[in-house]
Amino acid sequence: MKVIKYPAKEEWSEIVKRPHLDVSQLNATVQGVLDDVKNHGDEAVKRYEEKFDHAHLDSLAVTEAEIEEAEKTVSQELKDALHLAHHNIAAFHHSQKFDGVKVETCPGVTCWQKSVAIEKVGLYIPGGTAPLFSTVLMLATPAKIAGCKEIVLCTPPNKEGKVNPAILMAAKIAGVSKIFKAGGVQAIGAMAYGTESVPKVYKIFGPGNQFVMAAKQQVSLHDVAIDMPAGPSEVCLIADETANPVFAAADLLSQAEHGFDSQVFFITTSEKVLDDVKNEVEAQLERLPRKEMAQTSLDNSKFILVKTEEEAIDLCNTYAPEHLIIATADYEQLAEKVVNAGSVFLGNYACESAGDYASGTNHTLPTHGYALAYNGVNLDSYNRKITFQHLTEEGIRNIGNAVVTMAENEQLEAHANAMRLRVNSLKQ
Amino acid sequence: MKVIKYPAKEEWSEIVKRPHLDVSQLNATVQGVLDDVKNHGDEAVKRYEEKFDHAHLDSLAVTEAEIEEAEKTVSQELKDALHLAHHNIAAFHHSQKFDGVKVETCPGVTCWQKSVAIEKVGLYIPGGTAPLFSTVLMLATPAKIAGCKEIVLCTPPNKEGKVNPAILMAAKIAGVSKIFKAGGVQAIGAMAYGTESVPKVYKIFGPGNQFVMAAKQQVSLHDVAIDMPAGPSEVCLIADETANPVFAAADLLSQAEHGFDSQVFFITTSEKVLDDVKNEVEAQLERLPRKEMAQTSLDNSKFILVKTEEEAIDLCNTYAPEHLIIATADYEQLAEKVVNAGSVFLGNYACESAGDYASGTNHTLPTHGYALAYNGVNLDSYNRKITFQHLTEEGIRNIGNAVVTMAENEQLEAHANAMRLRVNSLKQ
Repeated sequence: MKVIKYPAKEEWSEIVKRPHLDVSQLNATVQGVLDDVKNHGDEAVKRYEEKFDHAHLDSLAVTEAEIEEAEKTVSQELKDALHLAHHNIAAFHHSQKFDGVKVETCPGVTCWQKSVAIEKVGLYIPGGTAPLFSTVLMLATPAKIAGCKEIVLCTPPNKEGKVNPAILMAAKIAGVSKIFKAGGVQAIGAMAYGTESVPKVYKIFGPGNQFVMAAKQQVSLHDVAIDMPAGPSEVCLIADETANPVFAAADLLSQAEHGFDSQVFFITTSEKVLDDVKNEVEAQLERLPRKEMAQTSLDNSKFILVKTEEEAIDLCNTYAPEHLIIATADYEQLAEKVVNAGSVFLGNYACESAGDYASGTNHTLPTHGYALAYNGVNLDSYNRKITFQHLTEEGIRNIGNAVVTMAENEQLEAHANAMRLRVNSLKQ
Repeated sequence: MKVIKYPAKEEWSEIVKRPHLDVSQLNATVQGVLDDVKNHGDEAVKRYEEKFDHAHLDSLAVTEAEIEEAEKTVSQELKDALHLAHHNIAAFHHSQKFDGVKVETCPGVTCWQKSVAIEKVGLYIPGGTAPLFSTVLMLATPAKIAGCKEIVLCTPPNKEGKVNPAILMAAKIAGVSKIFKAGGVQAIGAMAYGTESVPKVYKIFGPGNQFVMAAKQQVSLHDVAIDMPAGPSEVCLIADETANPVFAAADLLSQAEHGFDSQVFFITTSEKVLDDVKNEVEAQLERLPRKEMAQTSLDNSKFILVKTEEEAIDLCNTYAPEHLIIATADYEQLAEKVVNAGSVFLGNYACESAGDYASGTNHTLPTHGYALAYNGVNLDSYNRKITFQHLTEEGIRNIGNAVVTMAENEQLEAHANAMRLRVNSLKQ
């Protein structure tokens, strides 16, 4: 880890700099697979599944029988945990329901917003060593609450052509409509264009490797919306002398184990806490199964000593972290000063793991500084706020002439005329 | 115009098909300009202004003196109209303010959202024959209400190096912080990367030609968020036998005059209204100064006769129009059935011009079928909803074990450990 003591403000932009992220060199490969899926549908998806996942598939759809089988396989302990997590995620996202109010902007002119669910959404859940069933809950639960009619999930099968039972269980609990065995670029293509078996969706959500990221970017240019741009996961932890170094170290490590490129940022006002957390990180690291991965991202991590909490939060806002843990005595006051972050965890008990799994907040969050302009997935991500308006005769009398004047000045005569006809009709 | 009577449902997908929109052939040109601006800042922007706008600029920033001069030039009538429009746009967007509620998802676990303004936003206003000052109001008013600290506006100057006074006036009324003389790709680059005089922003809003669209797409892949993908403007008008054919024709023409590629879609249950509107369109067209442009888009317009209102709204939802005018007796019931649209205008008096200028709704809306997944610009577009959470000891007791179980099953041992340490600390 890099220990930086009392950096000058001029050094901040260098300190918060993330590695350049560019997947454009994958574009040609990715475009080839996307085009193939667009032109050849299921046949192409199956071909790529054979090639990349070494799975021979007769059909892409997961059957009811497979879901029932999965239900028997998953332990009661994990089932209970999934239900508890789903309950909390549902409670939080349900509270985000939006009721538009009718606003009379001036007498006779009424405007309002109505939140309407995106009809078809696609969720991508990566494969790999560990099954990311928690992401299934995070993406499907708000989709169901929003009222999306079709919630499609794609996830790569194993070599035997099976999907991990915990993923199927989570999908069932959260209310996914259709599950397909497809991974990588071919899955993104299938959902973006539709195939014989996979429905075309209007928005694609979910994490993935560089190829999946590149594919989501490509299809988002023309065919379908995406949740947000992706990058390596990251945490910023702000601690004062009251922080528990054992907890802090564990939180930093839980970020570090995500991947070789995970970003770990530790800011403290206490030199003692900096040393204690550093030592504790090294001790805990030894006991981790993913030690090697965590070690790599820790080597790039930054432990920064600053003079004041004000400086700590300013530096953090400059960094704009995906996750921000504030483990200080006055976390409530500091929380008020957060301007750029994805999700904020307050106090010694709100560890990132809580939000990653079961507190109720979403764990699909903006990385790589995207928190400057994006928020994480929430209920809004599955809705559109459509505007409505109604005008009475009084409304026409109040805004009619202004509209005509503005349209004339923009040299849009037909626009002016459409309103002028209404204005004149009231004079007769 | 193409008159289509009682089309079968199988024909709908062909009827609603829009021309393919692909700006990727511009990518090389656009990337060249972007790179140049990234590397050479103001000097490059000035060079392109000389080349494309034939304006020789000593400095890019619009001065206070220029704004004062503009104020004297704009007619009192237009000033009054701008103030009235600004009042209504502000009233509607102010009503969209979001107050997060704290939710106890389970005892001891509290989660909430807080809406925080994006600190720096950039607004692009195209040049051309007509000054789009209405778009200045539409983009800057919500930015100011959201609380964005820096609201940057770029717009191309004329050959004398001057910005249209109505644009400057609208920018002053709406609260723009800084105005720069820059258009096209160079303006997008300046705001995406920052130059000596133009601040780097985190999100870029606004319309533009194909080059601007391509530039926004390019920079959105890495550097900055954008409002939404763009396409030609469009309207769908649903009318029954009670509709006023003169108003309906004027509304269709006000869309048609936008550009050669504007989309005009007219759906009615009444053959008489179809004929009347058709005749009225032809009559009104003769009197329009932008006749040629309107004629071209009218040639591609579709006038569709359907059997029932149910069918009308289903076809419209399949089309997913940017603007939807419902001129039927029972517009309230039909409005309830709208699933895919940008902005909806109800009854005979709510013409599109009302919303384009002064009713209060935003006119920056999803075109080209993007209404399937996107909404128009609203207050949310300038905010991020950051999530916060706090856990008590009781919270740890309630979700701790579930988190540990889920983390273990995802093979994320450090995640499990971070929570296990908290759970165990309460047992001591």
